[in-house]
Amino acid sequence: MAGKVYLVGAGPGDPELITLKAVRALREADVVLYDYLANEELLSYAEKAEKIYVGKSAKHHALEQEEINELLIKKAKEGKVVVRLKGGDPYLFGRGGEEALALAESGVEFEVVPGVTSAIAAPSYACIPITHRKISSSLAIVTGHEALDKQKRIDWQNIAKIDTIVILMGVGRIEEIAKEIIKVKGDAPIAFVYKGTTKEQRVVVGKLSEVKELRKKVSPPCVIIIGEVVKLREKLCQKK
Amino acid sequence: MAGKVYLVGAGPGDPELITLKAVRALREADVVLYDYLANEELLSYAEKAEKIYVGKSAKHHALEQEEINELLIKKAKEGKVVVRLKGGDPYLFGRGGEEALALAESGVEFEVVPGVTSAIAAPSYACIPITHRKISSSLAIVTGHEALDKQKRIDWQNIAKIDTIVILMGVGRIEEIAKEIIKVKGDAPIAFVYKGTTKEQRVVVGKLSEVKELRKKVSPPCVIIIGEVVKLREKLCQKK
Repeated sequence: MAGKVYLVGAGPGDPELITLKAVRALREADVVLYDYLANEELLSYAEKAEKIYVGKSAKHHALEQEEINELLIKKAKEGKVVVRLKGGDPYLFGRGGEEALALAESGVEFEVVPGVTSAIAAPSYACIPITHRKISSSLAIVTGHEALDKQKRIDWQNIAKIDTIVILMGVGRIEEIAKEIIKVKGDAPIAFVYKGTTKEQRVVVGKLSEVKELRKKVSPPCVIIIGEVVKLREKLCQKK
Repeated sequence: MAGKVYLVGAGPGDPELITLKAVRALREADVVLYDYLANEELLSYAEKAEKIYVGKSAKHHALEQEEINELLIKKAKEGKVVVRLKGGDPYLFGRGGEEALALAESGVEFEVVPGVTSAIAAPSYACIPITHRKISSSLAIVTGHEALDKQKRIDWQNIAKIDTIVILMGVGRIEEIAKEIIKVKGDAPIAFVYKGTTKEQRVVVGKLSEVKELRKKVSPPCVIIIGEVVKLREKLCQKK
């Protein structure tokens, strides 16, 4: 009997922000492959499954991704129902596209289960609506951790023209990025949401010109939001 | 006793793509306000609730939005647990920001429950990963239905420089938009995903230069995707 792989979005961290479909896939799973998860509680849905941690080190990215692909294919070909559990959404900077391509090329059946992305949910939990009818009608979601072998590099001055900018995995390079954005957007508001939607969430808010100081108050993982919508936080936060 | 309003994302259409938190809010609700939902099945979680359809006509947007805000406030002040159920995510072009501001100004307690957005899930279900490590590291999500009283208008030639472009509510203006994008991006691939993630989903794929013909094959609501990632669909779609 042929197996199947589910590429599943685990959501942004709050364990209640997982979807019914993700929970069903976990319950059916014979094997779960997971890496960093904001909340490991989610693994408890996979009662009967073998759970394999495939956490990636920063060093050997490419190789390890290949190993993960091979493991997914191997387990599926053994007839297993395999869940590849990924933070947020599998196709938004989750390398789900690469895993899906490897599975397709090997003729393994797979299905993608979209998840709530931290790019939207972390700002929400920090009282920041990423769009607002009169303030922001365009949103850019960008990774601060761009593949070095990608053909076209990110043009941050171009990104700066978009109303709201959300940067994932960007803490390490934010000073450099802010320097480019400020040239176009001026001294716009910026928010860092550390571990958004989890119990450890912390929010640091300021202006682009203060980014060096703000940066010192946070560490990865953060969702970074730049744009006028950040100002709405003052009105929308009901609790401290 | 003071009531509370939950601004809840219902997800993109597939009723299994709702979150556990959204289901909990619906179960607790005394009142549910909903407008267009891709799947009304979701209302069945709100067993004990009064269900109020507040669907908006295209004509009297502003006034009706105000009426919705007032109804949310009125019901909450009566001590009710109120769910405002919205397709996708409440803060991504859902006018959730406006509702949140109205609630905050009236001193009504509220909480936002982020949802899976059709901007990511509809492409997923159409076998299109919106990002891919080597192909796309920036994503723009834009509304084709911009508020006429917004100060700054969308610059589509600027948007065109982003790797992947997702347009929501854009079918009506897509010919005009494509003309701008093609100037920068060239004759890029475009996909229309009609009623994405629902049983009625249909996908129409082509190139920007063919947009007039493609447009004839679809009707709203569609999620429109422009960029090289659309080409991955050929490899990733396992079923017809």
